[in-house]
Amino acid sequence: MKIIIVGASGAVGNTAVEALSGRHEVIKVGKSSGDVQADIEDVDSIRAMYRQIGKVDAVVCAVGHGHFGVVHEMTSAQFMKGINHKLLPQINLLLEGFDYINDGGSFTFTSGVLNRDPIPGGSSAAAANGAIDGFVLGAAVDMPRGIRINAVSPEVLEVSRTKYDGFFRGHVHVSNEAVGLAYSKAVEGCLSGQIFIVE
Amino acid sequence: MKIIIVGASGAVGNTAVEALSGRHEVIKVGKSSGDVQADIEDVDSIRAMYRQIGKVDAVVCAVGHGHFGVVHEMTSAQFMKGINHKLLPQINLLLEGFDYINDGGSFTFTSGVLNRDPIPGGSSAAAANGAIDGFVLGAAVDMPRGIRINAVSPEVLEVSRTKYDGFFRGHVHVSNEAVGLAYSKAVEGCLSGQIFIVE
Repeated sequence: MKIIIVGASGAVGNTAVEALSGRHEVIKVGKSSGDVQADIEDVDSIRAMYRQIGKVDAVVCAVGHGHFGVVHEMTSAQFMKGINHKLLPQINLLLEGFDYINDGGSFTFTSGVLNRDPIPGGSSAAAANGAIDGFVLGAAVDMPRGIRINAVSPEVLEVSRTKYDGFFRGHVHVSNEAVGLAYSKAVEGCLSGQIFIVE
Repeated sequence: MKIIIVGASGAVGNTAVEALSGRHEVIKVGKSSGDVQADIEDVDSIRAMYRQIGKVDAVVCAVGHGHFGVVHEMTSAQFMKGINHKLLPQINLLLEGFDYINDGGSFTFTSGVLNRDPIPGGSSAAAANGAIDGFVLGAAVDMPRGIRINAVSPEVLEVSRTKYDGFFRGHVHVSNEAVGLAYSKAVEGCLSGQIFIVE
């Protein structure tokens, strides 16, 4: 398979690279790294990326961020960061990707733990995650030509333990291998409309 | 209690009015109907509504709509309709409402069935519902002064059977009373961070 992995240099995206690159042609995409550069917050950049790469069998997206701060001190614009920086770029990767994905191909989004196991200040990200999970379920029933769509929703990675120290007290930390298996199942498996929870 | 019900003239909002108006002071809010008029897609209109009504014990919101159409024919702007017309107005009602809600008060949002039991063409609404459900869980842990936040997520109402004829094949239709009980539990109960599913 020819597989685009957006956010390949990030901790989460790297698990997909590790899981899939031994068996497939993986094209690593990053904003300023990887095999191809694209800013997926910019639709024109997404289009240029697809034109450069051409037809593919799978698109994996493991990027996005939201606002962190308690809800009673949050502005509407801050709330929308989760939507604009995590949800919408993944949606646009799909909407712009229909002309480039082969029959029976797949799109795999990434959500996260915060809409099932919240932390203080995480409501913007929780909303984005919930939107991604809901969209995947809703979109799966529409998909043409046997194309599948799923999301991977991982707990905090073991390798990110230091980065998020103190924010996720009591949360399990998951291995790169466990998260990579979820991306493998999403890309190489047969299911659609699934949220593959790793925890 | 003094309770604002936004979307009181709609089929869903009316169930909250029926359930709560016998025991409480209910202020019905609509875009062009009710006791107070407000367009909750306009933050200035939300602010004017709160200034006019003053302090309250509960805010219920039962409005919102999304784009309906299959995902491979959907534009990014169409996708965002669910976010802009269903999610964001409810978020803004909360963010602008902190100065007007009494200690121990509550906010009750409305999501819906499409992010757990999808129909063709419903991915924009499914994303909005998922975002609302995720946000409620995430925001509940932040809420100050004993303020609660929940969502009611109803199946299609019996009274809306004709309106949505053919779109929700096989879905259960629920009574006004059943949906009203969920709003009652959200407003008059003790839980927070809950999605009260009615199906």
